[in-house]
Amino acid sequence: LVTKKIALLPGDGIGPEVCRQAVKVLDAIAERFGHRFEFTSHLVGACAIDATGNPLPDETLAACRASDAVLFGAIGDPKYDNDPSAKVRPEQGLLRMRKELGLFANIRPVTAYQALLKHSPLKSDRIEGTDMVIFRELTGGIYFGEKGRTADGVAYDNCTYSRPEIERIAHLAFQSAAGRRQHLTLVDKANVLETSRLWREVVREIAPQYPGVTVDYLFVDNAAMQIITNPKQFDVVLTENMFGDIISDEASVIAGSMGLLPSASVGAAVAVFEPIHGSYPQAKGKGIANPLAAILSAAMLLDHLGLTAEAELVREAVDEALTNNILTPELNPTAPYTTEQVGSYVAFWI
Amino acid sequence: LVTKKIALLPGDGIGPEVCRQAVKVLDAIAERFGHRFEFTSHLVGACAIDATGNPLPDETLAACRASDAVLFGAIGDPKYDNDPSAKVRPEQGLLRMRKELGLFANIRPVTAYQALLKHSPLKSDRIEGTDMVIFRELTGGIYFGEKGRTADGVAYDNCTYSRPEIERIAHLAFQSAAGRRQHLTLVDKANVLETSRLWREVVREIAPQYPGVTVDYLFVDNAAMQIITNPKQFDVVLTENMFGDIISDEASVIAGSMGLLPSASVGAAVAVFEPIHGSYPQAKGKGIANPLAAILSAAMLLDHLGLTAEAELVREAVDEALTNNILTPELNPTAPYTTEQVGSYVAFWI
Ligand SMILES: CC(C)[C@H](C(=O)O)[C@@H](O)C(=O)O
Ligand SMILES: CC(C)[C@H](C(=O)O)[C@@H](O)C(=O)O
Repeated sequence: LVTKKIALLPGDGIGPEVCRQAVKVLDAIAERFGHRFEFTSHLVGACAIDATGNPLPDETLAACRASDAVLFGAIGDPKYDNDPSAKVRPEQGLLRMRKELGLFANIRPVTAYQALLKHSPLKSDRIEGTDMVIFRELTGGIYFGEKGRTADGVAYDNCTYSRPEIERIAHLAFQSAAGRRQHLTLVDKANVLETSRLWREVVREIAPQYPGVTVDYLFVDNAAMQIITNPKQFDVVLTENMFGDIISDEASVIAGSMGLLPSASVGAAVAVFEPIHGSYPQAKGKGIANPLAAILSAAMLLDHLGLTAEAELVREAVDEALTNNILTPELNPTAPYTTEQVGSYVAFWI
Repeated sequence: LVTKKIALLPGDGIGPEVCRQAVKVLDAIAERFGHRFEFTSHLVGACAIDATGNPLPDETLAACRASDAVLFGAIGDPKYDNDPSAKVRPEQGLLRMRKELGLFANIRPVTAYQALLKHSPLKSDRIEGTDMVIFRELTGGIYFGEKGRTADGVAYDNCTYSRPEIERIAHLAFQSAAGRRQHLTLVDKANVLETSRLWREVVREIAPQYPGVTVDYLFVDNAAMQIITNPKQFDVVLTENMFGDIISDEASVIAGSMGLLPSASVGAAVAVFEPIHGSYPQAKGKGIANPLAAILSAAMLLDHLGLTAEAELVREAVDEALTNNILTPELNPTAPYTTEQVGSYVAFWI
């Protein structure tokens, strides 16, 4: 019997509607197990800019810090994407949250669900049985280096990595590999980038502390191919921020839908759980958004709080929805269910 | 009737054996059309380091400059990849050649060959009819920015782009789109990177000069998904150096084999034609390397020299090999032909 404070940051677009389904499922878990989850909701992203001028208001950040876990929806609105003069943008809220909360590791499991093989653009025999987890560094690299324009108009973005920045996430990835299939793949571009050469050095140094774990090194261009041609070879994939952004979205095609993929961002303090899909503004309010990624993010949240039986139950309930085809239109175009219905069905199985 | 000087830079691993087949085909073209191709062979990559200590000897660079076109094999040897202390590396030869020859645009056509649909990891209905060409910037960005370590051991790689660097390749890409399906997609990360924002600005400014061409903007993480889920949407894809490295290799899975994909690197002066695959050292000398990418690179070379009928004939001859399954083991595992045999078969059809 636990009491936990969960900060909800639903954000923009379909964020609020998928978050609502995750909350519904967490409420069902609380009732079933006698826990108490105290939810409070806070602004982030475009809606926060509209309301306060700031994509990450201080109040939101303080609420995250005061909670046991954060459930995040999605951010982004086309009105900011296509306005090059916009100085304040929704993404800044997300990036600042990562930095302020020290969320240095973004963890994305990628699984090929049996019931969804037919939806993947990849041939089933290539992906069946895929089970990998990507560790993406989230608070360093080219995302957070110095950027700007020189006096003569040259644009620049600096990519930097220090040894401790690499060590802390490398240890998390090795620990994960040690509890899985004992295989870690570092994805980098060490034949060109100095930062990648430092990643390789640090991983090589740490490796002996995990003697059971086999380490492979793959250039990112090659990795972008291997993820599609032979995804089953991967167990734990470790990579820097920008490469992780690209290959983790690429890897999502294995699951047959972005709408299935959860993520956890962890660090020194509170952790944040969010679907990997974006705010998908065109779908907002139509009841067609897939809530399963948000619900599976809630399962990762439960795991993180030490509630592993509860997390397992959520995953089993999601499997019921998959097996019985209680799915939103992108996965069930002929007899689709709404976002609400899918959420209620999963909650029903709790 | 033309006389042309072609510099051959076979390089390492399977480079020499696939180049030999391309030369065989070019010789057949010369005989058939009464042209004269004068080939000279020069060192580059690991073999150049072994022989001269320099991955791009001055003699090689001078020979490239003095020729009408360069046919390049591949470079790279594992003995350099796994030696972090190696100060001289084969890749430096390739990167320096790009810089010295001003090869600012790498052009990679990606086609789904009917005969090879079954070999692609992607479902046939997703890729059938795919016909795109990727324009990757090749002499700027994070590849060529300042890199190193600070006094306190922080590694850095600086990514920079100037307006002229973007303009010149953007014009090439727009011109290509204007002669194709009138659609250009810029791939960037303008929600995070200042360099990407400059790319977007410049492309937006240039666009009105090509009024028939529709322009789309795609974040690189989204592009990495779309290339797999819906490749047919792309006509001309324009992107910076690092993103181009990743997405062009990723896109190669559409063709069913890297062994089919040619590329051209063009700029101010002489142009370089090369298969996109690497040196594949494990296959060296075994007669299993697919020569078609090198042969199709020779076809691009012919186009570049204005010999378009000749280029077309080479492509038709390659189609014969594909249709009749005269292919190396990765595409024809049950009754494979050798590198030499595939080359001779293509030459036979000339
Ligand atoms: C919105 C954007 C800044 C963000 C990123 O690039 O990190 C997103 O793509 C993600 O992966 O969470
Ligand atoms: C070998 C390497 C430096 C090179 C690159 O990254 O440009 C290669 O991957 C390529 O795409 O030609």
